[in-house]
Amino acid sequence: MPDSTPPTDFSPDQFRRHGHAVVEWIADYLATIDDYPVLSPVQPGDIREALPARAPEAGEPLDRILADFDQLIVPGITHWNHPSFFAYFAISGSVPGILGEMLAAALNVNGMLWKASPSATELELTTMDWLRQLMGLSDDWFGHINDTASISTLLALAAAREAANLDIRQRGMAGRADLPALRLYTSAQSHSSVEKGALTLGFGQQNVIAIETDRDFRMRADRLAAAIASDRAAGHLPVAAVATIGTTSTTSIDPLRPIAELCQREGVWLHVDGAYGGAAAILPELRERLFDGIELADSLVVNPHKWLFTPVDISALYTRHPDILKRAFSLVPEYLVTAEQDEVVNLMDYGVQLGRRFRALKLWMVMRSFGAEGLRERLRHHIALAQRFAAWVDESAAWQRMAPTPLSTVCFRAAPPSLSAEAQDALNEQIMAAVNASGEAFLSHTKLNDRFTLRLAIGNIRTEARHVARAWALLNEALERLSVGALER
Amino acid sequence: MPDSTPPTDFSPDQFRRHGHAVVEWIADYLATIDDYPVLSPVQPGDIREALPARAPEAGEPLDRILADFDQLIVPGITHWNHPSFFAYFAISGSVPGILGEMLAAALNVNGMLWKASPSATELELTTMDWLRQLMGLSDDWFGHINDTASISTLLALAAAREAANLDIRQRGMAGRADLPALRLYTSAQSHSSVEKGALTLGFGQQNVIAIETDRDFRMRADRLAAAIASDRAAGHLPVAAVATIGTTSTTSIDPLRPIAELCQREGVWLHVDGAYGGAAAILPELRERLFDGIELADSLVVNPHKWLFTPVDISALYTRHPDILKRAFSLVPEYLVTAEQDEVVNLMDYGVQLGRRFRALKLWMVMRSFGAEGLRERLRHHIALAQRFAAWVDESAAWQRMAPTPLSTVCFRAAPPSLSAEAQDALNEQIMAAVNASGEAFLSHTKLNDRFTLRLAIGNIRTEARHVARAWALLNEALERLSVGALER
Repeated sequence: MPDSTPPTDFSPDQFRRHGHAVVEWIADYLATIDDYPVLSPVQPGDIREALPARAPEAGEPLDRILADFDQLIVPGITHWNHPSFFAYFAISGSVPGILGEMLAAALNVNGMLWKASPSATELELTTMDWLRQLMGLSDDWFGHINDTASISTLLALAAAREAANLDIRQRGMAGRADLPALRLYTSAQSHSSVEKGALTLGFGQQNVIAIETDRDFRMRADRLAAAIASDRAAGHLPVAAVATIGTTSTTSIDPLRPIAELCQREGVWLHVDGAYGGAAAILPELRERLFDGIELADSLVVNPHKWLFTPVDISALYTRHPDILKRAFSLVPEYLVTAEQDEVVNLMDYGVQLGRRFRALKLWMVMRSFGAEGLRERLRHHIALAQRFAAWVDESAAWQRMAPTPLSTVCFRAAPPSLSAEAQDALNEQIMAAVNASGEAFLSHTKLNDRFTLRLAIGNIRTEARHVARAWALLNEALERLSVGALER
Repeated sequence: MPDSTPPTDFSPDQFRRHGHAVVEWIADYLATIDDYPVLSPVQPGDIREALPARAPEAGEPLDRILADFDQLIVPGITHWNHPSFFAYFAISGSVPGILGEMLAAALNVNGMLWKASPSATELELTTMDWLRQLMGLSDDWFGHINDTASISTLLALAAAREAANLDIRQRGMAGRADLPALRLYTSAQSHSSVEKGALTLGFGQQNVIAIETDRDFRMRADRLAAAIASDRAAGHLPVAAVATIGTTSTTSIDPLRPIAELCQREGVWLHVDGAYGGAAAILPELRERLFDGIELADSLVVNPHKWLFTPVDISALYTRHPDILKRAFSLVPEYLVTAEQDEVVNLMDYGVQLGRRFRALKLWMVMRSFGAEGLRERLRHHIALAQRFAAWVDESAAWQRMAPTPLSTVCFRAAPPSLSAEAQDALNEQIMAAVNASGEAFLSHTKLNDRFTLRLAIGNIRTEARHVARAWALLNEALERLSVGALER
């Protein structure tokens, strides 16, 4: 028979002891983060080889595990929380966000149903409503939280499919003579998650139509209109378009109003990908440039884990048609039936995932502790830093800006006039590798008009002018060192 | 120009101060968790009304926010980390798991690419390999981590669709004369995530065929064979079957070997849902009963956040065909191209989500600190507690067991012989409401053979014999009190 000394968890006092040690580690980490190499210098397989091939049979002391974390795991970390992380989109695990995650892990609730933790559901609805107001959206937008923009966009596209009233939920898409090809439209600059969502949902990659962009990498509404017309003529069914507010490569901002007006006329669901750039709509001075026409859109994704200083993962999906989203996804088996289900929001009804971490808690702590003005101030600071860097590029004969800089990400490359475009490509790839290998800054790249382009993405909450200046110095040192070789070849 | 006093994060010392306070709160919470009502007693809207309708304009002190957390948020928490949480499947935020989440939040990495944090990828592959070995799976199984079983199952079904070689990734499913209806098979007892995955992927609910179960709620392989044959005769294409090791209602265990042999003969992808029950395969004495035939299956989901004491969310998806999973999902835009991509595993290639939290860290800490034997010991303890409870039910004339108890969940109901089945239904619903309203234990229900059935699910790491005994006492008290009324009506 079980007991008398049953195996349970470590004791609260053991948590106290090791928890305080972990807090000390984190505080020291945050205080000394500048000293870590941003990009991990380890080679493929190094970490795995340092770890045992099998789980230990007997339990090990937490002290030893935490020491191993520091000695074996941390060297293989690329430090996304470093102020000189300028790759992809820079993100932040801010202090209030980390505290929020600590509490969420201790509570360990699954907010699938209102009943399963009323606070999880109601705080999620509250924080989504707070953020909605900060972005200036009207109150017909319903927001809920997902893990990632990949999922938020997938849900939005599924809602678009459901809105087409083709009985796909019940009858599916295959083996039906009554269904035409279902078409999606997005710009050639949009994020890969759009295409991934489309192929997951069974639209097929060939039915994702890449709409041409203008010279500033913004989707051309006239080309979208032409594509829709041509598809209709061919017997295809236009289902959804995705416009991006802050594309991944250049942060270009698609012209929302003409696109939204077109989509409304055509009965095409418009999803807006503002995973990164949507956050900037909390700035009144930018809102019209970003969101003019948003009231005509059908769904919008904004990721607090990108540019709102909240630890990964947390993505906000807003829609003006929560009923359609629910129609696409709600399934209530008997074991999830609750007495109050008709009077509450059960968030499991709005997506794929039944399991739901208490993600709203960290966002609530971030929004309260910085306040709306504190968030705005930080975004303005990042935008100003990026504009300064863009000016340095523009003022230098050796460098060239490759795209406008509407937000906090700068696209640029070294462009010594004596080198061919191909040689410039190679040079920039070498420059990036050299800067990243320094450990002092981490940049990533894209291709624009087929040319290798460096990106400096500012978004970490600890980034100061000196970090950006140092990146600029590193880039110039690398250019100087490498262009000699390039010119000699 | 930005700076000289730029707005950044709270200081490391502020983290230190508030982090220690949060650790104290969590330690006290874990020490006094027995005193909290398991099911939150708040009414719909209570929490939301207690919160401001708008985000604060100015930042607020962290002390005040943490006080509000305790006073406004915690009362609306249903305590999944409570030892008397017996609803759904009980889960645990264990001490090493909470410590792991703290560190993951501070590092805040996104492990989308190997380069984006080599440790995130390599520790994920390492812990998945450790767990694979503990479950006795051969080394041709590749494991990776997702957020939830809902997503793991969706990915598995997408891989099954890709394995059918219908060019769906490229051409989609709609508007194609060459595609028959694509059929999925699962038992009537399987989890709603199977159906949700199927409708997301465009299979359609009507193409999810519910296979009859035997009297112990296990899928009948002969009925599966008949359904496949009948579908083939009708011109449909059988694509995938889902067998469950530990169904949600009763934890019944589908007979894997005959199902797997059938699927292999038929060229049907077999996905095994072991989200809860798969964990028990770490017990050698149960493995054959659970996993006999697993070597013929194609994919398997096991959730460490269910019965392996790791905080939500973390779901392990294993497949013997990672190449097919990758073919279904890999998309590499230029901004995610890395020099070493052909020599490393980039985990973004194996699923929908690009963003990937560092979930392996908490699992690594859990597996190391308890050790394999510690995990086994805790599972055995839970199973023994459930068997004891089942015996109490069996020994009592007033109660009836509604299903076998192969693992740690007991299905039962009060069945006073003087009441009709319908009156018994109503009585059990009242008993459940009464026990849950006591705040001392939380149970949920299901329906079996159309009869309202109570479930006692044991899985929280802090659950001791006394908690189970108290639940039994509460049930009997409620029965005594309520059956008087029931008999009088």
